[in-house]
Amino acid sequence: MPSSLPADGRIRVVIENIAPAVDGGRFPIKRVAGETVRVEADCFADGHDALACRLLYRRDDEREWQFVPMTLLTNDRWRAEFVLGAPGRYRYTILAWVDAFLSWHHEFMRRVDAADVLIAAQVGASLIDETAARAEPADRTSLAEWAKRLRAESDTMRLHALAEDESLAALAARYPDLRHASKHPVEFEVAVDRERARFSSWYEMFPRSAGAALDKHGTFRDCEARLPYIAKMGFDVLYLPPIHPIGRERRKGRNNALTTTPTDVGSPWAIGAPEGGHKAILPELGTLDDFKRLVAKARAADIEIALDIAFQCAPDHPYVKEHPEWFRWRPDGTVQYAENPPKKYQDIFPFNFECDAWAELWRELESVFEYWIEQGVRIFRVDNPHTKPFPFWEWAIATIRAQYPDVIFLAEAFTRPKVMHRLAKLGFTQSYTYFAWRNTKYELTEYFTELSHGPGRDYFRPNCWPNTPDILTEYLQVGGRPAFMSRLVLAATLSAHYGIYGPAYEHCDNRPREAGSEEYLDSEKYQQRAWDLERPDSLAEFIGRVNAARRDNRALQSDRLLAFFPIDNDQLIGYGKTTPDRANVIVAVVNLDPHHAQSGWMELDLEWLGLKQGESYQMHDLLTGARYLWNGPRNFVVLDPARVPAHVFRVRRHVRNERDFDYFAG
Amino acid sequence: MPSSLPADGRIRVVIENIAPAVDGGRFPIKRVAGETVRVEADCFADGHDALACRLLYRRDDEREWQFVPMTLLTNDRWRAEFVLGAPGRYRYTILAWVDAFLSWHHEFMRRVDAADVLIAAQVGASLIDETAARAEPADRTSLAEWAKRLRAESDTMRLHALAEDESLAALAARYPDLRHASKHPVEFEVAVDRERARFSSWYEMFPRSAGAALDKHGTFRDCEARLPYIAKMGFDVLYLPPIHPIGRERRKGRNNALTTTPTDVGSPWAIGAPEGGHKAILPELGTLDDFKRLVAKARAADIEIALDIAFQCAPDHPYVKEHPEWFRWRPDGTVQYAENPPKKYQDIFPFNFECDAWAELWRELESVFEYWIEQGVRIFRVDNPHTKPFPFWEWAIATIRAQYPDVIFLAEAFTRPKVMHRLAKLGFTQSYTYFAWRNTKYELTEYFTELSHGPGRDYFRPNCWPNTPDILTEYLQVGGRPAFMSRLVLAATLSAHYGIYGPAYEHCDNRPREAGSEEYLDSEKYQQRAWDLERPDSLAEFIGRVNAARRDNRALQSDRLLAFFPIDNDQLIGYGKTTPDRANVIVAVVNLDPHHAQSGWMELDLEWLGLKQGESYQMHDLLTGARYLWNGPRNFVVLDPARVPAHVFRVRRHVRNERDFDYFAG
Repeated sequence: MPSSLPADGRIRVVIENIAPAVDGGRFPIKRVAGETVRVEADCFADGHDALACRLLYRRDDEREWQFVPMTLLTNDRWRAEFVLGAPGRYRYTILAWVDAFLSWHHEFMRRVDAADVLIAAQVGASLIDETAARAEPADRTSLAEWAKRLRAESDTMRLHALAEDESLAALAARYPDLRHASKHPVEFEVAVDRERARFSSWYEMFPRSAGAALDKHGTFRDCEARLPYIAKMGFDVLYLPPIHPIGRERRKGRNNALTTTPTDVGSPWAIGAPEGGHKAILPELGTLDDFKRLVAKARAADIEIALDIAFQCAPDHPYVKEHPEWFRWRPDGTVQYAENPPKKYQDIFPFNFECDAWAELWRELESVFEYWIEQGVRIFRVDNPHTKPFPFWEWAIATIRAQYPDVIFLAEAFTRPKVMHRLAKLGFTQSYTYFAWRNTKYELTEYFTELSHGPGRDYFRPNCWPNTPDILTEYLQVGGRPAFMSRLVLAATLSAHYGIYGPAYEHCDNRPREAGSEEYLDSEKYQQRAWDLERPDSLAEFIGRVNAARRDNRALQSDRLLAFFPIDNDQLIGYGKTTPDRANVIVAVVNLDPHHAQSGWMELDLEWLGLKQGESYQMHDLLTGARYLWNGPRNFVVLDPARVPAHVFRVRRHVRNERDFDYFAG
Repeated sequence: MPSSLPADGRIRVVIENIAPAVDGGRFPIKRVAGETVRVEADCFADGHDALACRLLYRRDDEREWQFVPMTLLTNDRWRAEFVLGAPGRYRYTILAWVDAFLSWHHEFMRRVDAADVLIAAQVGASLIDETAARAEPADRTSLAEWAKRLRAESDTMRLHALAEDESLAALAARYPDLRHASKHPVEFEVAVDRERARFSSWYEMFPRSAGAALDKHGTFRDCEARLPYIAKMGFDVLYLPPIHPIGRERRKGRNNALTTTPTDVGSPWAIGAPEGGHKAILPELGTLDDFKRLVAKARAADIEIALDIAFQCAPDHPYVKEHPEWFRWRPDGTVQYAENPPKKYQDIFPFNFECDAWAELWRELESVFEYWIEQGVRIFRVDNPHTKPFPFWEWAIATIRAQYPDVIFLAEAFTRPKVMHRLAKLGFTQSYTYFAWRNTKYELTEYFTELSHGPGRDYFRPNCWPNTPDILTEYLQVGGRPAFMSRLVLAATLSAHYGIYGPAYEHCDNRPREAGSEEYLDSEKYQQRAWDLERPDSLAEFIGRVNAARRDNRALQSDRLLAFFPIDNDQLIGYGKTTPDRANVIVAVVNLDPHHAQSGWMELDLEWLGLKQGESYQMHDLLTGARYLWNGPRNFVVLDPARVPAHVFRVRRHVRNERDFDYFAG
């Protein structure tokens, strides 16, 4: 019983090991409009014939492939590049074939025996005639003429010169015989985002605390008034916790208490009350028009509003009455409250994604995004996506991005690594990270090396937060102001995306609810707070300098080129970021010890930084304005946490111009 | 335009990163009958529910899957194993689901609040009732009774005891709700061979030189007479170059000359003459009955005959006249001879695998294997498979193995790494290697680490040859007898498969055709030679000792467990091989310098070898019979090429039995 023959046994080229590719093409790679995609693949056939390979690419909505010829690197590895246009979905794959004309052309060079050369010339003439038949009319004549001359010539030397004509050979190569070409069966996808998907600085703030005083519930108008303060610090995304009506049933009191007083405002994540759910606005914040005005005002200040989408319900959310089939009811007529162990959300019902009406539930939840998109929102921070099914997110994000390719989704999942990676693969634009809990030099080096060089680099875009309303780390609690400064510099320079929850951060609020807890005391999750933005010890001005460095230096706006440099002191961490062309190079050094000055010798990788051995270079500290002249790879650094616990150096190369004028550039 | 919803959005478990797998399941992994396949995969779902996973497996010709539950290791990685039966094709894949019963059972342990426990007991009772409905009648009653008791009980402590009943829980877990289970879409395949596919010792010999004298063409009867000699050396595969009629047109003379004398016998690879082609026998060797008798006699001596299959034709092969459509004719009515650059085979025509009649050509070539299989041959050494299309081999090998799963194919491809790997992936059982050109400690360590630990370990079975009729390496040419000894020990102990071309090897024939050539002078490829098997300087007895060590030590019969040990002398290489249970452990040390004695300190990895720190162990040299008592990881070794340039130690652990009697075992 023989196996069945292939449809055409003459398809001889193998195409495999295509990179980049996520899970063999199951998921798209992620890029930003205008970026170049460099594609490599192993292409080879039996025998010694010449191969030709093309990288095919197109926008998802185009029918015809465009192509670019691939170049052989070494060891059967081929490479080509294409440039991405506007945001959307793109595809690429590879076409390769054994090229009879090229094989003949390469082979001809090796022939020396006169009789051999004559026969080979005849063979080539036939191949060129076949090529001419496939050619555009304008080229057909040149090729036919070439074939004719190859047939007519009998002198070996002249035949060699004629056959080896590079311009005619290049012309012939444009019309290959593709009948037996191999096309890789997978169309690899690229999810192309706008630039903010690669580089963004987030500021999280509770609108209800945006008012001037504790006895007045903050409003969207108060948020408007806060915009210049945020813009001055240099943030470009203002992320608001849920803005919807807050449930009254089982409402949480201050500091997560299970009992409330009449003035308690509850948690914004306990979404829904009789006045509305996920598509409504908490009346105390203002109207829909107020919200749209805030979106517009922010945009005018180059700040985008990011909304929090939390798919869960307070017990008095309208969904609970209108769609009881979306919840899992227990024999006693109750619903088990939501948990994200060890956290318990007694004021929140989870949806039952396994209910029979799952399809209706999915459609309704997806419509929540669409509703806010229609109000002008283009960035969503999604709450605990890892507690909702992966297929839901994959479908919902694809559905939304097909219509609005400029929408950005940030996954707020702090969970197991493979779950976090899955969410990134299936479509989340950016992802929260473990950064908050990576404090030592070893931990930071390992983690950011993995993020920038591991397989996730093609789909997992880290967004690093030193704090959130849920996370006041022990390091910040005990390290005080220097810890807040160094963690900010680490987040802002190790990662193209970062964010802080403020004004708690600027004010170095380090009081935990109780010892051993990462919860804030008097957390804004459960109450209003008033912040004095004019406090003299605020970090706002320092943050502004860090964000200015980010805005001015493209090296800090991408996660693809990061290298760590050895320092002979484990309390000092040093690393570089650069643009691919080394036109912009940053070196940062951070003192991880918030209590003592630390010093050491740092060993730079000059070649990686684009510097020459033996030439001086200038290190311009963007935090202090100081400029140092360095030479060679080993240099001394000392950082005192009582002053500034970090250097963020812009590296300027020594240049001598045509008038013998020396300066530093970069 | 929303994306379409999935068929069932309740299928929540992700299954990915399954290992072993070759190219995502495109090709089978290779194993041997009786071996265990250990399968791992990442399985996870959203949220915090309990998962259950099954490894499904079956023989290709069975319809129903068998299954074994998988165990969670860590970080969402699951593992299970199954044992392979007789040779053939097997399949495996993974089924995983969110298990509502297990989730409830795990969750119940955490409940302490009395009201909570009562409600949870009711929920559990319903789940158990559903489970009972799926159960075998015998189990249904026990489960229904369990549910009933959970409903009736009201004491929290007793409810906990009742719910946590492990045997009832295990019973319930046997009847999961699989309606929303995820099944990995790929059925991964295992090509299961007989044991000789994992361990074999090859001896290559020209039958025409098997006669006693130069003036008599050797015959199959002469080969029979040679069997005891080969058996005594311990080889179990006798590989014969092509045994077919040899072309007379363009026949090669001695030492690859383009002209011949009437007595020249030509190259056996120039297959075909008027008296027959690939299914005929060179009359000088004997009849088909003689051949079948040789196969039977060899088998009686536990030696298998391997035939050389070379798909190419002498110009007077009957195919050329009968099927001119299978060849590429040039304008002058000739066919370009075959080449494998830089080698030129002026006496050979290649097939044109791109001809219109490719399907007929494929079928005819496949029938060549079938013909010889019907004559009793089960091992084929395939000549230059890399110059024939990959799809042909994949189809032909699958076709043959579907009917004869005990057939072994050795790929004689010395070419680029990816091409060699492709041939192994698509079905070749064993593969020639670069071993002949890996001479230094660095080269050998790198290459064998890659072979035993790289991705090829699941499909590429190396067969290492220190020489072949085509390859007399410079190392052998200049190193003399010690080089022949050390290269043999390296091949035989680093690789479970190895072979030599003899008697040239035993006789340390190191004369190249000319300086700088790897060709033998007076190569048997083009002429008969006579060999005096009684030569006192023959390595036959030494080879017998090496092969006896291989036969007696299972550690040397597999390539999966190999480790190199540091020695402070680059001329000495040391390594260990072991069975997975460490019941059989071999340590080899080889002097790579054929000219001088070399010594050094070797640092063993005692834990890898299964030895305890501080206990003495015996090193029993299987080549000399000497026994050494060693202690600790660092030991001194000295090897003199003038005597034996290698140790092959069997490591025997110190054992004290119940009567306080000390001995060494292993």
